[in-house]
Amino acid sequence: MQKIYLAGPEVFLSNAIDVGNAQKRLCESYGFEGLFPLDNTITGNHPKEIAEAIRHANAMMIRSCDIVIANLSPFRGPEPDSGTVWEVGFAQGLGKKVVAYSTDLRTLKEKTQSILHLGDASCDALGMAIEDFGLTHNLMFAHTVVASSFEECLTYLHQNA
Amino acid sequence: MQKIYLAGPEVFLSNAIDVGNAQKRLCESYGFEGLFPLDNTITGNHPKEIAEAIRHANAMMIRSCDIVIANLSPFRGPEPDSGTVWEVGFAQGLGKKVVAYSTDLRTLKEKTQSILHLGDASCDALGMAIEDFGLTHNLMFAHTVVASSFEECLTYLHQNA
Repeated sequence: MQKIYLAGPEVFLSNAIDVGNAQKRLCESYGFEGLFPLDNTITGNHPKEIAEAIRHANAMMIRSCDIVIANLSPFRGPEPDSGTVWEVGFAQGLGKKVVAYSTDLRTLKEKTQSILHLGDASCDALGMAIEDFGLTHNLMFAHTVVASSFEECLTYLHQNA
Repeated sequence: MQKIYLAGPEVFLSNAIDVGNAQKRLCESYGFEGLFPLDNTITGNHPKEIAEAIRHANAMMIRSCDIVIANLSPFRGPEPDSGTVWEVGFAQGLGKKVVAYSTDLRTLKEKTQSILHLGDASCDALGMAIEDFGLTHNLMFAHTVVASSFEECLTYLHQNA
């Protein structure tokens, strides 16, 4: 049974464990085993030691998986959660298969203009050009986005096994 | 001579080529060769083909380097540019050395509360907890941040060669 690492900002929700368990059950119904970051047992004596332990445990979990499903929905602005983006890059550097979803599939340009109230400007307030290739995300990982929901990623994986 | 891939949102500046050339000269003065993404020759017939060519060229350039220096300053919100974060993760998955800088070295919690006007809230407007480990960035890559400027990264590399 292939293992899927479940990457996304769900870990910051107050009901994260429930959300993770629901995702794992859904994985199982599609014939996969879901690995949720909060399943790791973490010990540490102070915040930075705990953070380091979480980082190592998550990295090991990604190494142990076959596939990553990542939630790349807008997070506190037009771009996805940086921790999830890092995990997508790390997994791709390791040669893992990555499929992602976003609840907002407008182009990155549309999302940036809309969420940051920039009208139809082609640059942000600091004069930095807004990427404009018709993609939903930054061009380095937009190709991983195949769906608008977690379950659609599972359907995609099932159809493209 | 070790090769350093220069990762950051500088590619979106109107004077990106000049900024890249200045970074490359600085690399040389510290005994490194700097590789700037915009040095790649890109061809393509439509936006998505060009984006794909840029992605492949950047990924090849990262594979060819020994070290990545990444600009992880706040970008359109409290978090860094997602393309740069992806490159940090990808490079670490490939086993490359990564050192990063940020012009804002407040904790991620302080930055998020301040930039998103959340007061002293421990959650954002959607009820998602703000990471609170005393780190400057998301715990998956905060350890790469060693400096507040590009040149300080070169100094760091020089002293930790």
